[in-house]
Amino acid sequence: MFRSAEFLFRPRTVAIVGASDRGGGGWPRGVYENLAHHDFPARVHLVNPRRDELWGRPVYPDFASLPERIDLAIVIIPAEAVPDVLAEAAQADLGCALVYAARFGEGGDPAGARRAERLRSLSAETGLRIAGPNCMGSLSLPERLLLYPTARVRGIGAGPVGVIFQSGGTFQFWLEQGAARGLGYSYAVSSGNELDLDAADYINFLVDDPHTRVIACMMEGVRRADALMAAAARALEAGKPIVMLKIGRSAAGEAAAVSHTGALASDDRVFDAFCRKYGIARVETLDELIEASLAFANGRLPAGPRIAMVGYSGGAKGLFSDYADEIGLDLPEFTPDTRAKLAERIDAGVPPSNPLDTGAGLARRFADFAEICKIVAADPNIDMVSVQGQLPLAEGAEGDPELFRAVRESTEKPVIAHNRMSQTVTDAGRAFQEAAGIPFLQRLPEVGRTLRAMSACAEARRRGAAPFVPPLARIAEPAEIEKLLAARGVRPPRSAQAASSTAVGDAVGAVGFPVAVKIVSPQAVHKTEVGGVALGVTGPDEAIDAASKMEARLRAVHPEARIDGFVVQEMVTGLETIVGIHADRQFGPVLALGLGGILVEAINDVVFRQLPVTDGDVAAMIGELQCSALFGSVRGAPERDVDAFVAAAVTLCETYTEFCHCLDGIEINPLVVFGRGEGVCAVDLRIAARAPDA
Amino acid sequence: MFRSAEFLFRPRTVAIVGASDRGGGGWPRGVYENLAHHDFPARVHLVNPRRDELWGRPVYPDFASLPERIDLAIVIIPAEAVPDVLAEAAQADLGCALVYAARFGEGGDPAGARRAERLRSLSAETGLRIAGPNCMGSLSLPERLLLYPTARVRGIGAGPVGVIFQSGGTFQFWLEQGAARGLGYSYAVSSGNELDLDAADYINFLVDDPHTRVIACMMEGVRRADALMAAAARALEAGKPIVMLKIGRSAAGEAAAVSHTGALASDDRVFDAFCRKYGIARVETLDELIEASLAFANGRLPAGPRIAMVGYSGGAKGLFSDYADEIGLDLPEFTPDTRAKLAERIDAGVPPSNPLDTGAGLARRFADFAEICKIVAADPNIDMVSVQGQLPLAEGAEGDPELFRAVRESTEKPVIAHNRMSQTVTDAGRAFQEAAGIPFLQRLPEVGRTLRAMSACAEARRRGAAPFVPPLARIAEPAEIEKLLAARGVRPPRSAQAASSTAVGDAVGAVGFPVAVKIVSPQAVHKTEVGGVALGVTGPDEAIDAASKMEARLRAVHPEARIDGFVVQEMVTGLETIVGIHADRQFGPVLALGLGGILVEAINDVVFRQLPVTDGDVAAMIGELQCSALFGSVRGAPERDVDAFVAAAVTLCETYTEFCHCLDGIEINPLVVFGRGEGVCAVDLRIAARAPDA
Repeated sequence: MFRSAEFLFRPRTVAIVGASDRGGGGWPRGVYENLAHHDFPARVHLVNPRRDELWGRPVYPDFASLPERIDLAIVIIPAEAVPDVLAEAAQADLGCALVYAARFGEGGDPAGARRAERLRSLSAETGLRIAGPNCMGSLSLPERLLLYPTARVRGIGAGPVGVIFQSGGTFQFWLEQGAARGLGYSYAVSSGNELDLDAADYINFLVDDPHTRVIACMMEGVRRADALMAAAARALEAGKPIVMLKIGRSAAGEAAAVSHTGALASDDRVFDAFCRKYGIARVETLDELIEASLAFANGRLPAGPRIAMVGYSGGAKGLFSDYADEIGLDLPEFTPDTRAKLAERIDAGVPPSNPLDTGAGLARRFADFAEICKIVAADPNIDMVSVQGQLPLAEGAEGDPELFRAVRESTEKPVIAHNRMSQTVTDAGRAFQEAAGIPFLQRLPEVGRTLRAMSACAEARRRGAAPFVPPLARIAEPAEIEKLLAARGVRPPRSAQAASSTAVGDAVGAVGFPVAVKIVSPQAVHKTEVGGVALGVTGPDEAIDAASKMEARLRAVHPEARIDGFVVQEMVTGLETIVGIHADRQFGPVLALGLGGILVEAINDVVFRQLPVTDGDVAAMIGELQCSALFGSVRGAPERDVDAFVAAAVTLCETYTEFCHCLDGIEINPLVVFGRGEGVCAVDLRIAARAPDA
Repeated sequence: MFRSAEFLFRPRTVAIVGASDRGGGGWPRGVYENLAHHDFPARVHLVNPRRDELWGRPVYPDFASLPERIDLAIVIIPAEAVPDVLAEAAQADLGCALVYAARFGEGGDPAGARRAERLRSLSAETGLRIAGPNCMGSLSLPERLLLYPTARVRGIGAGPVGVIFQSGGTFQFWLEQGAARGLGYSYAVSSGNELDLDAADYINFLVDDPHTRVIACMMEGVRRADALMAAAARALEAGKPIVMLKIGRSAAGEAAAVSHTGALASDDRVFDAFCRKYGIARVETLDELIEASLAFANGRLPAGPRIAMVGYSGGAKGLFSDYADEIGLDLPEFTPDTRAKLAERIDAGVPPSNPLDTGAGLARRFADFAEICKIVAADPNIDMVSVQGQLPLAEGAEGDPELFRAVRESTEKPVIAHNRMSQTVTDAGRAFQEAAGIPFLQRLPEVGRTLRAMSACAEARRRGAAPFVPPLARIAEPAEIEKLLAARGVRPPRSAQAASSTAVGDAVGAVGFPVAVKIVSPQAVHKTEVGGVALGVTGPDEAIDAASKMEARLRAVHPEARIDGFVVQEMVTGLETIVGIHADRQFGPVLALGLGGILVEAINDVVFRQLPVTDGDVAAMIGELQCSALFGSVRGAPERDVDAFVAAAVTLCETYTEFCHCLDGIEINPLVVFGRGEGVCAVDLRIAARAPDA
């Protein structure tokens, strides 16, 4: 399933194809100078049929003439020339080609798409690995191999963060900003169109790499969801958090992604479900990608979701409370013991509660503040601690990194420092952060989201990601599935048929009151128009009476009408929900549940999870609905039968799984949820069979 | 309505009360040294009964002994001592006291509340102005008067931004970060508990101040909503944008705000409605407060909401598209003429569409990129332009600020530069920004929200803020209001009464089918339990029949039942909405509308505006509802009568206005909206009369 990125990241021999002093926008020379800057970490050769010598080295016309086999070709030539050059290189047993040129079909151009197809075939036939095209190269920091065309990347240092960005310019800018904040990198690649090597391959490489502790990704589209899921599962098992920024949440964003790299953007909410399952920290901005990478690189994960926040600014506390509420953070109260200890140490008049404002009096009493942080970190109600901290701009400024380190060392729990807003970080600031041994995050909303991501990642690691294993296929008959579901407790409305209006009296007895009575006749297709429906009928006589009146009304309009009888159906009233499984083209089956009936599209209050799901998952999904209050008692309506709803959703998932090879989807809308203890009723079941050729 | 802040911001004589070398946490000395640093911009005297001399100056025991009248007293003494000292000072005709101490009731402490009450009385009786307490001072940059206790504020420069922060520590930190980004300030105050001078007074001062072009606020609670509205109206009229960060969106946030400054937090959505009406740019974070202040300080506002974005990064374009979609930005397509001009200049294979990615080829061709920006700025479909731009870290780095200036000078429209993420800004960067003449904003979500805020502010300025002028009060009788509303087209369901079951046949004719028939009897209070309701009755005979069956059923249970007759009521089915007006305790009447029926609390899809509202306002409110699709045709249901709904909402507002002195609120829930051309029906009208003593 995975293709090796070994020749890309750790080549021993490198050829620069298109080597020239000023050609290729200066990129060949830029890459060469970056190789020279670190004294050639690999043996370097130059290839260009139009030259003999360059930079005091021989230049070879092609791969056949090169003095040794090449691990990695740096290919900086026009798109049109790439397929022929790589065909010749593959014959010379080239390991991997890093292709910079764009115009391989990403704009929808047919000639570009043909070029891409030629490369794909070449790769499939010869095993040649291809990185890019439409990229800006890669960095192997442990080897000091900078295959990137600008000198600015030389300032970027080694560290535990592996980086995969589909976008080349943003890649470099983010690496620089991250470095300014104290991030160091292992391997970093601008993956471009991912024609061959893709994000899944790179993640797989980074999971095995001993330098890498955290994997930071910016993705625009998903190439192979199965491989991505497998790579994510490996990362989860290896305990290497993935932090993910994905473009294409909006339709317009998707259009931009398609035009940029030709990527196929998948439905964003399915992608969210994927991230949740594998404990991937999905972030919203490039800045948050830095904050989360800093936090995860520090190594600790919390044992639970309970956060404490300690600061000396009432304003910052107020802001954080707002953000915590919006994000949905768990900020429990401290134990009485902690509160008593805190009350002795904080300013008079401020409460010893979480989030904690110690009062401005502690702002410059650094040692006292650190003691307060230790007391909070020791509280058994708390799983992780965020303490206010600001990095100094200049060396020798006030504050002591050892105090932060002491807080960290007083506990096994994650400890981070937060600054209430953006802050310039200087060399002195980075040295302080390094000495403190904890990450200094910026901006309270990002701090809150990062804390939540740490807890979600830890939770995913504890429970593991159950793989979706479909059983053997058999043929799905809608009637069989309906029967199976009914046998498993997901029943349709009770109904009975009556041959005549007088027989309706017996039929209603089998159904129970109240009922709806409907006439069955070829002349009464639109039943309400001919008065052929009676709702809320509460007794046998009323039912017979209603049925005979229907018959009379119909005969008044159509004297020749054929009357086939009557249907008596249970009146189903309760909370209308939707529960459905849809097989995503890329990520496989996903459970959706939410508000149902005709409101489902207008309100769009639906949440998603990848299969398989447990009772606990479904219960959590209900909690995430905007309308979750409807499951409790509301405006006099009784509490709903949440247990029956959860069981029905899990049953639907299990039943789908049995037939997943022949079903694209299965949906109950509405699934009516009655009051507590009264169960549910599947009013309308729809089954989408898989097309035979799919 | 406004109290003058003149003595606080422009004092000619200042007394430091509590002057001592090491007392008061070093604050008296800190303030003194900041005054000395700028060579005493006001005449300074020292007050302390326990000393004779300090810093080579005489120290006076009290105000009576001072050699001249004092404009402003800097009061840095314990809370307990403040009331007596100010009483003595007021006798000596002190103009204003700036009180630093906390513990004036903000923690709910009764002794503190008594102290606060003493100061309030003193102020009311003598006209003494009080700033704070529980604050950290103020800065008057035009006068170079730094009444703040730390030396760090000396680096802060003068400029067009007036600043009001309730929180003292965050105040200083924000000022410094803003200065690092190129903001300069006119007058800045940490307003603390706002016991006397409050945000409204400070805004009023800044509106009149010729140095101030933009007003930046961080508020925790609203003291006097009427004064705040009046001040906001003055700022809108004067063309001075207000940028507002307000704590207390969440319940927990409110608790923090209350504990911090004793402020009364008002309902957050009412505050949103207030901001919208007065064109106040409400921001979510301290960082966004900087971005918006930078943008507004540049002076230009757009003629409409249409935004163009120009950059050379496909990744940034994809991200911006996602954020634009979430924020709801208007990014129209360029004209064919613009597209043709762009196609000649951008990289091959990228589309000439908005948002525009010129391709990486333009990233270092600065002059060509500027020409492209000018073409976009000239497009008649566009009201404002955001161009990618990164400030240099060092002087002499690549890039030319004159090119950005040329783009700005090519158009009257607002032009801003955006960086895709946070960036360190150095002296060289600030000089570049200054030379470019446009603001360089950071982080794409904040860029998008700032552009939207500029457009909202411009729109509010164009339409002006209509004041809410209540007419003379009369007594509101619920029946009179119901009748008035019906006469104005907001009708209740049609209904008729019948004395007997046989009379029901005539009654239904007056109502029209289908109808509900209900029995009226003291023995049938719970009508459904005795079978006393028939729904969906479609003809006179059926109605008579149903009525006589009800009578029979009731008599079967209660042979002695008194039957008063029957009510026949129109069956009202359609979209259930809620429309209501609620008189906010602080901001006055607010219109709420949204999804109605029993769903209103569970779904909570409701939007708000301050009165008065126009047809256009109500139409815009519908568009902001999450369920706005329900007003169009959805799942076979016909399109709703939006015009009738809009008219009903405006009518309800007007009718409320007539009775606003005797009503706390008026609400229709559900207001059922029928199909296009069929109007609305007010099923349930509720009126909340004002309590006599309110």
